[in-house]
Order: sequence, then structure tokens, then C-alpha cells
Amino acid sequence: MAAPYELIYYTGVPGRGEHVRLILEEAGAPYTDTRPLPMDKCREIVTHYLSGEEQGNPPYYAPPLFKHGDLLISQTSNILMYLGPKLGLAGSRENDIYRVNALALTALDGLSNEVHDCHHPIVSELYYEDQKEESLRRSKEWVKHRLPKHLGYWEKVLKSEDRGQGPWLLRSTFTYADLVLFQASSPITVSTCRPCLDGVQFAFPKAMKQARESGKYDSVFQLWKDVKARPNIAAYLDSDRRQKYDWGIYRYYPDNDVLPE
Amino acid sequence: MAAPYELIYYTGVPGRGEHVRLILEEAGAPYTDTRPLPMDKCREIVTHYLSGEEQGNPPYYAPPLFKHGDLLISQTSNILMYLGPKLGLAGSRENDIYRVNALALTALDGLSNEVHDCHHPIVSELYYEDQKEESLRRSKEWVKHRLPKHLGYWEKVLKSEDRGQGPWLLRSTFTYADLVLFQASSPITVSTCRPCLDGVQFAFPKAMKQARESGKYDSVFQLWKDVKARPNIAAYLDSDRRQKYDWGIYRYYPDNDVLPE
Repeated sequence: MAAPYELIYYTGVPGRGEHVRLILEEAGAPYTDTRPLPMDKCREIVTHYLSGEEQGNPPYYAPPLFKHGDLLISQTSNILMYLGPKLGLAGSRENDIYRVNALALTALDGLSNEVHDCHHPIVSELYYEDQKEESLRRSKEWVKHRLPKHLGYWEKVLKSEDRGQGPWLLRSTFTYADLVLFQASSPITVSTCRPCLDGVQFAFPKAMKQARESGKYDSVFQLWKDVKARPNIAAYLDSDRRQKYDWGIYRYYPDNDVLPE
Repeated sequence: MAAPYELIYYTGVPGRGEHVRLILEEAGAPYTDTRPLPMDKCREIVTHYLSGEEQGNPPYYAPPLFKHGDLLISQTSNILMYLGPKLGLAGSRENDIYRVNALALTALDGLSNEVHDCHHPIVSELYYEDQKEESLRRSKEWVKHRLPKHLGYWEKVLKSEDRGQGPWLLRSTFTYADLVLFQASSPITVSTCRPCLDGVQFAFPKAMKQARESGKYDSVFQLWKDVKARPNIAAYLDSDRRQKYDWGIYRYYPDNDVLPE
């Protein structure tokens, strides 16, 4: 019997673990998840596994953690890169895995880490309330300078025709990089649950609405819709396994919901 | 004839390209580098390659870029992961590459990206001078909360004995993760050229001197010395191929050179 895929993460918010859930759900791969456990139990398990060791793995700095047999690894993009080829979601040509990983890292840097830092620009150990002023200034500058740069980049990738036709980042071939970008861009309404385009939309609904209505990033917003409509993803988003945004990477603070000046 | 390894990056500072140089130099692998070119020429080449396309590669967001035959990729950790197994620097056991990549990503996140954001907490499109106040506050909080957390983590990895003995992050096996951590921690003097422990030391000499003298992170500072003494690394550091820190990721601003309060 093959070893199970085990996701070890906190509960209560989608967080960085959500990228791992999406690749597994898209592939229809069975996995275990600490999500249904109470938070104190999650913390206990995360702490235990962060210490590594037992099976020859180093200690790690932070979850998500992923266990497959004796192998224990951390870092979102790393876990996706491990799973991508196994689940047939890392491209079809030789070395596509490195193209896909570059795209996934860029989406995580620009639309996840940078957005997190909008509510914690000084240091993550302090509360938002203790860095509110800097957070507002960063949010204003971010939607002005960075958001259009990021959306413009992804639009360029999706519009480039020399690599063939298709709605995906590698054009005709759907890969996990599409899932990561989706997980950052809910373009339409701020309603229930959304995470990268999805997550940015949750944090900055006004700026994302304006970006959508500008017509400049139609391919990016179309990708969001196309990913959402994939049968396994749609079923997952409708399930009770999908958690809501709240206090995680993507947060909605009305003061920070600004338009580019 | 095998395709050459080609590093495409800006000139004038070590930057993120330096991690790629160190792995190639350690392995004694020949490579081409845009470093000796004038900056305007570098910008031109970087811009050309960022647009991807020509050989079926997607456009990328930012350098460093790495070309090997028809393959063009971006993202520092991704380039290292591509080169690691080819150069024998990604561990010896099955799946070690994913352990090494997790460690490398953690060093890049904590000791490179976070340190960069100390001089640009608001947004990288504005000058340091236009975010000086926020930069000082972030630097103070960073050396207080984050620096001890990061150094403590690496000390724990280097001290964990269940995985065997040895000075390296994977204990007896030297890997490129050691090079990445080195490239963040010059512990001894602020003198000429240094980059992750190396770079942090350049940016925060007072706090790093205090950390070194505390004796709490001896394994981390020992790793820095051990990497520096490796013959190929020592020869490289002495060569004119090694550039100085200046306006890049790691910057020395006297106002920000603070001790934890």
C-alpha cells in the first residue's frame, strides 16, 4: 500500500496550506489534513513535526508541512513541486517543472507575501493595530505601484501567443501554477470564500474591482473563472473542506481598502 | 558539446544572482555571467530575456535568469534546485533535494527578503529616503523579534544530532543550502564584501556582533567560517568576480544599525 499524503497545518483559515489542498483536490488524490482538528491540537501536531528529526528530516521553520512516508518537507512551493509531477500537474515538456515552479514562486511572492505585508509591514510579531499607520501607507502604495505591475505581468504571460493557444499559463497545458494564481484573485464579488487573485480580491475589493472593470487584465480574470469552473475545484469550493478568509494572509481592513491615487 | 550555463543578471551588486554564482563556483562549473558588462547593456539583456517566448519559455517577472540550452528559468531557489542535482550539491539520499530546497527557501525568506524589506518596508518603488521613518521602526523590531528567531532556528538545525554528525545543514553532506545560509551571515568584521548571514551582517553589524558574542549561535557562525574556507569559495571570494554590497538587497544605513531593545 502506498504511503498517504499528509498535510500538516493550522486550522481556521485557508492560509498557505490552501495551495496544497487545491493541487490534491484538482487531481482527486486522497490526503489527510489536520484542518478538522481543534486549533490547540493542530498547534501541538505542527510543533511536533517542525522539530523534524525522527525519520532523518531536518527541523523546519514554519508550516505548511507535508509528510509522505518517511519524507517530511516544508515550504509551499516546495510541496507543490514535489506533488506536481506525481499528480500530472507540472507540464508536459522536459524541464517544464522549472518553468511552473518559477511561475508559482512569482505568484506566491507578489500576490501572497506582498499582500500579507500590507497588514504587517513592520513585523509579524506585532498586532495590526500596532502598525495601522504604516499598514495604511503600504496599502496605498501597494495598490498604486505593485498591483498593476503584478496584474500586468500575468496578463502578459496569458496573452503571449508564441507558446501556443490556451487559457493557462503554459497555454494549452493546465498546471498547478494556474491554481496558485487563482488562489490570489477573486475578481467579481467579495462574498464567501476566496484565496492568490482570490485573496487579493478579499483584501482589496475596491482596487480589484477597478482593475477588473479597466479591461486591461481580462485574461487574468478569465483564468480565475476558468479555474473556478474546473469540476474538482468547483466541488471542493462548495464543500465544507473550504475554509473562509479571516485572520490569515489575506485580511479585510476597511481602512486599507483603497483605490490607486 | 554540452550547452553552457548562462547567468543573466544586473551588474554592480551581488544581489540574488550571487547565490547562483556560489553554487557554480563551489562546483567549479564553467558559466557565463553578464556581470562584467556595463549596466545599460545588462538591463537590455535582462529585459530581452524577461520577455521569454523565443524558445517556448514564458515571460518572467524579474532576474536572476538562467539559461541552459533552450531552457530559460527565473527565481533564485528554482535555479539552485535545477543546478543542485547536476552539480552534486543537493544531498545524497532520495528526496534530499526537497529537504535542501525547503532549507534554501527558508534562508532566502528570512535572511534575504526580510532584510531587504527593512530598508523598503512600504514599497520598493519608493526611495529609502521616502520611507526612512518606517524603515527605522521596522529595523528596530526586526533585530528584536526576527533576527533571534532566525538565528535560533538555524542553530537548532545545526545542533540536531539525530541526523548524524557534521558541520552542515544536512550534517555530514555539504549542500547548496549551506551556501545560501552563508550568503546571509558575515559574523566577524564588516570589511569588504559579504552577502544571507554575510548580508545580514553588512546591514546590521551591531546586532550581529552582539548575537555572535552571546555564544547562543556558535554553530551558525561556525558554518559561515567553514563555508568561507572551502577552497573554491575562498578563491572566488578573493577574485575580482566577487562584487561589493552597495545599493542591493543588503544596505548599510547607519540609522538602521540598531541593537535589540
